[in-house]
Formats: sequence, C-alpha cells, structure tokens
Amino acid sequence: MQDLKTQTLVFDDPKARALDAATLTEALSALPGWQVRVVEGISRIEKDYAFENFLDAMAFSNRVAALAESVGHHPALLTEWGKVKVSWWSHSLRGVHHNDLIMAARTEPLAV
Amino acid sequence: MQDLKTQTLVFDDPKARALDAATLTEALSALPGWQVRVVEGISRIEKDYAFENFLDAMAFSNRVAALAESVGHHPALLTEWGKVKVSWWSHSLRGVHHNDLIMAARTEPLAV
Repeated sequence: MQDLKTQTLVFDDPKARALDAATLTEALSALPGWQVRVVEGISRIEKDYAFENFLDAMAFSNRVAALAESVGHHPALLTEWGKVKVSWWSHSLRGVHHNDLIMAARTEPLAV
Repeated sequence: MQDLKTQTLVFDDPKARALDAATLTEALSALPGWQVRVVEGISRIEKDYAFENFLDAMAFSNRVAALAESVGHHPALLTEWGKVKVSWWSHSLRGVHHNDLIMAARTEPLAV
C-alpha cells in the first residue's frame, strides 16, 4: 500500500462515508499512538505529543496548523505546557474519513 | 478596585491557596463569558472565543501564548476552526488562583 502520508486527500466524493469502527481500528494499527475517542457521538482520532515546554508545544501546534491550512482540512489542537493533543475528524461526515488517517500520518513528522 | 488586568501576578506566596467556590463565582462577575469547569477534580476558568476561520483562531492562540510566556504562567488552548477555548488554572494549587483571574482579564483584549 502506498505510504499513508503521501496518499491524496479527497474532499469531493459524494459517496464519502465515515469509516466504520472495525475499519478504523484496523487502520490505526498503521498509526502508533493514535486512538479513537467519541465526542458528542462523533468519532475522532487523537494523539498526545509531549514537548519540553510550552513554546515547543505551541511551535508544533503552529506546524500542524500550517499543514492544515495548506490542505483546507483542520484539526482540534489542545496546547498545554509540554503537550499537545491533536484530533482529526471530518465534521461533515460526523466521523473519521480516510483523509483523517492521511492527516494523522502527515502530523507525525511535524513532532520531531 | 484596581483594574484586574493591570494587577500584579504573585507566584511566590507560600500561603497561596486556590480560591473557594463562592469567592470564585463572585470574582467571575467581573469577567463576562468566563465560567468554572472542573476537570479531574481541579477547577479551571474557561471562555470560548469565536473567529472567522482557523487562521484567525490560531493567531489569537499565539497572542495568548506570547502573553503566557511573558509571565511564565500558561493556559490550555483548544484551537479549532473558528474557535478557541482558553482555560486558566494554577497547577500547583490544583485550582484557580487570583493570578488566573488576572490572566483571564489580560486575555480579553487579545481577542479583538
């Protein structure tokens, strides 16, 4: 399979559906540290990243924000002292789409 | 009373305690939109700010981050498309200190 982070995002598929739980669980095996959390009935995938201090955490959030802005698909970023929780999901589908797996994979190298 | 946002932060008071619920509720009357939320047994004060898009939300988060860094006291910033939830509390006191009220007041003008 093509490396997840280099796959192409697709936002204009009228047949797009959120991934079912089994598919999502299997897909996350390729994304270490990413987990499903359901918030107000909507699944999202999340990962906590650790940093040395607040500035480093905020710098990472800004890198993820720039990535998000570049593709027009945006996460939730919870920035605190020494940590950031990144959450990806597809609002319009009320769940996690393959696009979100791609974005999670693209988030990973930004934490280094 | 001196305007809250111009008051001096105090971090070295060995007698510092988290504000009790009644004092906190009264104090929040001076901070429109700020509410108490208890997370894992620890009170924090929070406010949701709305923006036109993700970039504006992130720009606000960066302004709050710069404020935080300038005084060495840091919030949680939940940045999403068009909104930011700012949370202030004092980790070491496991609750809200007067410093957090000052920081909330200083956060307000950054949203404009």
